[in-house]
Amino acid sequence: MRILKMGQAGGGIGAFIGEVHRKAARMDGYVQMTAGAFDIDPQRSLEQGKILGLDPKRVYTDYKTMLKAESALPKGERVDFVSICTPNFTHYPIATACLEAGFNVMCEKPMTMTVDEAVSLQKLVRKTGLTFGLLHTYTGYPMVKLARDIVKAGDLGRIRKVVVQYPQGWLGNLAKTMPLKAAWRTDPKQSDASCCMGDIGTHAANLAEYITGLKITSVLADLSTYLGGKLDDDGNVLLRMEKGVKGALLATQVGPGEENNLHIWVYGDKKSLCWYQENPNYLRVLSDTEPEQVWKRGNPYVAAKSPSAGRCTRTPCGHPEAFLEAFANHYKNFTDTIRAKELKKKPTALELDFPTVEDGVRGMKFVAAVVESSKKGNVWIRIR
Amino acid sequence: MRILKMGQAGGGIGAFIGEVHRKAARMDGYVQMTAGAFDIDPQRSLEQGKILGLDPKRVYTDYKTMLKAESALPKGERVDFVSICTPNFTHYPIATACLEAGFNVMCEKPMTMTVDEAVSLQKLVRKTGLTFGLLHTYTGYPMVKLARDIVKAGDLGRIRKVVVQYPQGWLGNLAKTMPLKAAWRTDPKQSDASCCMGDIGTHAANLAEYITGLKITSVLADLSTYLGGKLDDDGNVLLRMEKGVKGALLATQVGPGEENNLHIWVYGDKKSLCWYQENPNYLRVLSDTEPEQVWKRGNPYVAAKSPSAGRCTRTPCGHPEAFLEAFANHYKNFTDTIRAKELKKKPTALELDFPTVEDGVRGMKFVAAVVESSKKGNVWIRIR
Amino acid sequence: MRILKMGQAGGGIGAFIGEVHRKAARMDGYVQMTAGAFDIDPQRSLEQGKILGLDPKRVYTDYKTMLKAESALPKGERVDFVSICTPNFTHYPIATACLEAGFNVMCEKPMTMTVDEAVSLQKLVRKTGLTFGLLHTYTGYPMVKLARDIVKAGDLGRIRKVVVQYPQGWLGNLAKTMPLKAAWRTDPKQSDASCCMGDIGTHAANLAEYITGLKITSVLADLSTYLGGKLDDDGNVLLRMEKGVKGALLATQVGPGEENNLHIWVYGDKKSLCWYQENPNYLRVLSDTEPEQVWKRGNPYVAAKSPSAGRCTRTPCGHPEAFLEAFANHYKNFTDTIRAKELKKKPTALELDFPTVEDGVRGMKFVAAVVESSKKGNVWIRIR
Amino acid sequence: MRILKMGQAGGGIGAFIGEVHRKAARMDGYVQMTAGAFDIDPQRSLEQGKILGLDPKRVYTDYKTMLKAESALPKGERVDFVSICTPNFTHYPIATACLEAGFNVMCEKPMTMTVDEAVSLQKLVRKTGLTFGLLHTYTGYPMVKLARDIVKAGDLGRIRKVVVQYPQGWLGNLAKTMPLKAAWRTDPKQSDASCCMGDIGTHAANLAEYITGLKITSVLADLSTYLGGKLDDDGNVLLRMEKGVKGALLATQVGPGEENNLHIWVYGDKKSLCWYQENPNYLRVLSDTEPEQVWKRGNPYVAAKSPSAGRCTRTPCGHPEAFLEAFANHYKNFTDTIRAKELKKKPTALELDFPTVEDGVRGMKFVAAVVESSKKGNVWIRIR
Repeated sequence: MRILKMGQAGGGIGAFIGEVHRKAARMDGYVQMTAGAFDIDPQRSLEQGKILGLDPKRVYTDYKTMLKAESALPKGERVDFVSICTPNFTHYPIATACLEAGFNVMCEKPMTMTVDEAVSLQKLVRKTGLTFGLLHTYTGYPMVKLARDIVKAGDLGRIRKVVVQYPQGWLGNLAKTMPLKAAWRTDPKQSDASCCMGDIGTHAANLAEYITGLKITSVLADLSTYLGGKLDDDGNVLLRMEKGVKGALLATQVGPGEENNLHIWVYGDKKSLCWYQENPNYLRVLSDTEPEQVWKRGNPYVAAKSPSAGRCTRTPCGHPEAFLEAFANHYKNFTDTIRAKELKKKPTALELDFPTVEDGVRGMKFVAAVVESSKKGNVWIRIR
Repeated sequence: MRILKMGQAGGGIGAFIGEVHRKAARMDGYVQMTAGAFDIDPQRSLEQGKILGLDPKRVYTDYKTMLKAESALPKGERVDFVSICTPNFTHYPIATACLEAGFNVMCEKPMTMTVDEAVSLQKLVRKTGLTFGLLHTYTGYPMVKLARDIVKAGDLGRIRKVVVQYPQGWLGNLAKTMPLKAAWRTDPKQSDASCCMGDIGTHAANLAEYITGLKITSVLADLSTYLGGKLDDDGNVLLRMEKGVKGALLATQVGPGEENNLHIWVYGDKKSLCWYQENPNYLRVLSDTEPEQVWKRGNPYVAAKSPSAGRCTRTPCGHPEAFLEAFANHYKNFTDTIRAKELKKKPTALELDFPTVEDGVRGMKFVAAVVESSKKGNVWIRIR
Repeated sequence: MRILKMGQAGGGIGAFIGEVHRKAARMDGYVQMTAGAFDIDPQRSLEQGKILGLDPKRVYTDYKTMLKAESALPKGERVDFVSICTPNFTHYPIATACLEAGFNVMCEKPMTMTVDEAVSLQKLVRKTGLTFGLLHTYTGYPMVKLARDIVKAGDLGRIRKVVVQYPQGWLGNLAKTMPLKAAWRTDPKQSDASCCMGDIGTHAANLAEYITGLKITSVLADLSTYLGGKLDDDGNVLLRMEKGVKGALLATQVGPGEENNLHIWVYGDKKSLCWYQENPNYLRVLSDTEPEQVWKRGNPYVAAKSPSAGRCTRTPCGHPEAFLEAFANHYKNFTDTIRAKELKKKPTALELDFPTVEDGVRGMKFVAAVVESSKKGNVWIRIR
Repeated sequence: MRILKMGQAGGGIGAFIGEVHRKAARMDGYVQMTAGAFDIDPQRSLEQGKILGLDPKRVYTDYKTMLKAESALPKGERVDFVSICTPNFTHYPIATACLEAGFNVMCEKPMTMTVDEAVSLQKLVRKTGLTFGLLHTYTGYPMVKLARDIVKAGDLGRIRKVVVQYPQGWLGNLAKTMPLKAAWRTDPKQSDASCCMGDIGTHAANLAEYITGLKITSVLADLSTYLGGKLDDDGNVLLRMEKGVKGALLATQVGPGEENNLHIWVYGDKKSLCWYQENPNYLRVLSDTEPEQVWKRGNPYVAAKSPSAGRCTRTPCGHPEAFLEAFANHYKNFTDTIRAKELKKKPTALELDFPTVEDGVRGMKFVAAVVESSKKGNVWIRIR
């Protein structure tokens, strides 16, 4: 298997998510961190690259220089993809530039700042035929893949209702300890159209759509700004999904002591299922007529039900996997897709099982709709 | 302590809730089951009374006869209160008759069928000065009382948000196994204005108000009828509460495998708390800056924080208490209130800690508001 | 069903276990607390009886007087059984006197102080044909009955190993807060031959034997006295059971913060099971080849597998039951056995499902053996 | 930070543990997989190296060739350490050869086959001054480091008792599905002196010693061979530790459905603690006088209590870490120690926090003692 070369825009030392991208990409040994543009100050960028063990010639001050220089390298030497870990508002221009320069892209979330940008990027991806990944981490967990496959197999029957809760507390805590930093987060000039919904609401929505295979068609949102900023730091959203499914999505970033407590419950007319991100190796399946089942990652019965979960499993049952592996699973499928295309093979469904520009478009539309709904006084807004 | 005499309307052998009332009332040994009107068929009512070990003279065919006959008995011999465990639509007339005949009342939920009836009953209770209890079971749990006292003490800081989930699955199961019985439940002619919201939504609303000490002021509800009946069997409700608190209340009776899975999360600006009915002896308190605390029923530190929880504790820590004890706590406080009044003493706050006609009025208004909200297309409805 | 009359020796107001006996016996409404000998001081005994609502004529100063007076009453009026809730060293003489006077007995644990006494009591029970119950609470839980029936059905295959842990912390805490009371507990002159093993080790041993249907045949014990008393406050015991089963029993009363944390794991060659007393409504069944099953109390599939669990269930699934109900189940089966014998019917296996004098004999032998093993330097001691 | 070059003996593609070593070593980006001897067949070894992206010149057929060739390379180019992932019986000769050739060693468990070999290796490590790591995975978890630091800080008071349970089920399952492979595992000619105790008993013993800071001084073991092999597949061990601490260690590899269910409970005279490997991000601290505390990985209060836990944390709270990270923490500290020595600096206590040859010697002595104890009929054996 060819080791792919990774370039990184942003995400230098100290940036949590940049480091996670590197660890996840490298996990299976088939990606090599090769180039990066970490800082606009040449000296600082170089230092970062040095710490990361990069060849100084492959360390750049900005993404434009990186794209130009890498493009000039012979194929096989140049980076195969660029991971974008820069501040949110730059994702769109950088992703666009990468695609236009012929580089595959793995993009941090949010994909863009507006729906228009998202749609524009979607067109560009389709036009170039390049591979584009988006880091909706949570669908990388094998037990989430199993959940999707249990739903797809019809085990729950006809889906009725989805409830997804995503409480965090860090923003409220930040407002106490570093008020300026928190203010930045909730200022629409410096941040997005939404804070809580953009940051974690989209994850929750993406998870609900992924597991059920159904799209959210309308939202009625009640957003709140408990911290006094201009953007939501909390929100409760009623959902309509395809095939008459209803639901609720509750998210907060100001729940003291809540860490990253994403839960999902899916109710069918035969069975239900439930998954918790903070103890992610287990999937519960509930029934009225038999004992609850706890499916446990790493067992043959999991892989038999969900080849996708089986493929995305690195350690035996009882040797827990967690956040990094979920992240790495997206990199694994993303890079396998690049390799397949390189060999002129059609990527398999298992290889294509990572979030793409389509998820990014849907996420931006979701955010736009919930913001509109809340502004208009909590009314239903259709998502086209 | 005087042993009070209990009469029962309805709730004969085989009726789950009637039996729970008896067990709960009797638990501490200070209530004696003395009289009852179990069935309109004299023979069957007598048989029920016999099984329950009642003096046949105190077994009646209907509540009117019972009230008349008991009223004729000398004070001290006649029943001290009547527990109403009859079908829902009869609660109001029976409760009214009991109060008018001078009997204290412990009433099963729902209190009435309409807001008007509820308000009328409220007036009657106020007028008569009699003691009226309503069986919102879940506030009887000591850890719920502790939760309220932790909130009241300000430990959570200013309350921001309340989330309460109440999923059950039995109605969906019933629709498969006994479709006629399920149809009855969701037919407004035979049942209430609401099925799911009336049955368990009110419990959830009552719990949220009890713990926070704040009233729900508006609702925006999205009710569903998955089973094809005419009444809701599921609903998602956005809440506004006093002091700017927001929330969400999600209930269902068609979630396969869900049993009685009432959860509540309360978020303040300092700390959060969380309680689960199915493992009720624990209360979790979350903080951004220190380890999560798991408060455990029966410990001195619980009683020190919440005398009300301490008083409503029967077994040492680690010897779990559950549903029946929660029920019994309401009977305990209800009967202690009766005894205090009898002795011309003002009942203490601890004794008065049981749901009353006021909770019943609020519950009926809640149901009316959510039904109206849903009918009008999911708009905000104020609860006066 | 005839309401049986209960007399009580000891266990007056304020005595935790005496009150539990009353609550449990009364729970189903078919036992009436009728007589008692609560205190050697006539005035105090009377006061206790008054608080309990007893007829003063049925309140006695000591058990001998009670037995004499009750025997003199006509059948049907006299008490049907006596619950013995007195200090440990008096259980044997009181139980003997009750049986000799023709009264059925429900005895608190430990049954006696010595193996000889236990065997003597066993003979007396057999001779009199009276019904004798012993309060090994934990086999009263429906999920424990289910566990036994799952083992009996062969679902686990051939049993290999049993592990039972029973950590508590109260004795260590008592030694800090009320050193004299703790000293009493660990003084062989005032207490038994063993503290921790006698008090909770026997519960754990009884549970292991009940679920597996196999007797403990040898023990190798390592007892400890962390508090400096003369009796064990902690112990680790290796087990041999019938049919080559091995095991370990670990108990402590000095584990800070441990409440009543009885766990049991049973390993067969096909499946395993696991039960926790502090969240007793669930039974986990583990397999190498399928998802873990969580059996939940109150469901039809539980009653189908274990009629004994089904019969000992009072509330629907999700409405948790706990310690008092487990206790009450022993009273239910004990009193149903009395009623069956009264009607000259052979009690059914379901009715006979409560701990008896045989369990008491085994418990005393277990305690004697572990004490001997530990004294002799942790060697294997056979239990005949 | 210098990127260290890693050589690997054994552990080619398909070998679970070899792959884990690579992933863990590579996780932080400061180790580069550089050389390896994967297979005695040159072609197969080359293929493995190719898959791993190694320079074919650095792929060898056996460790001797690797050591010779790498030694010939200039410093800075040659590998900095060798990870030994070969079959158990070869660990000792390979480790010896590596050390003698001047290479640092990270060794899979068990370190050797006999105590004598272990002691000999210990001498060699001391003599060479090289860095030697041993993969007792579980002390790599940050919450285990926190547990140790909580004990060390005296928060539990004087330690009284340690209970460690380590049930697995895979060996029993293997005996059903691949009997030959299971037979190999339990044949002393092909395997060690012990199967279950050597494989997982040593992990449990190591964990108990690490957290308490106390050595096991005597054991009384009851080993079993349920599968009919010649080596134990299960064992229960009573422990004596330094400072009068007692304990029990229960391990099995034939518990159906058990995965890797390592639990530890440590009881002091003030508080207790408890940790579970399968949900490793939480540490519970129990007290008689206050609510249970659940310490959660990634929070500032954890790092403040345990700098070692803080240092070994890669993702924020609520973004769970698991087995790979625990493994990687050992590599991190091991390689930082190598780097410190290279710079002639004394490694800090934090850097030295990984299992060493000393742990390996203790592990071999533990195994020898439990085997001897069991053979001699379950008697106490001192560990010198």
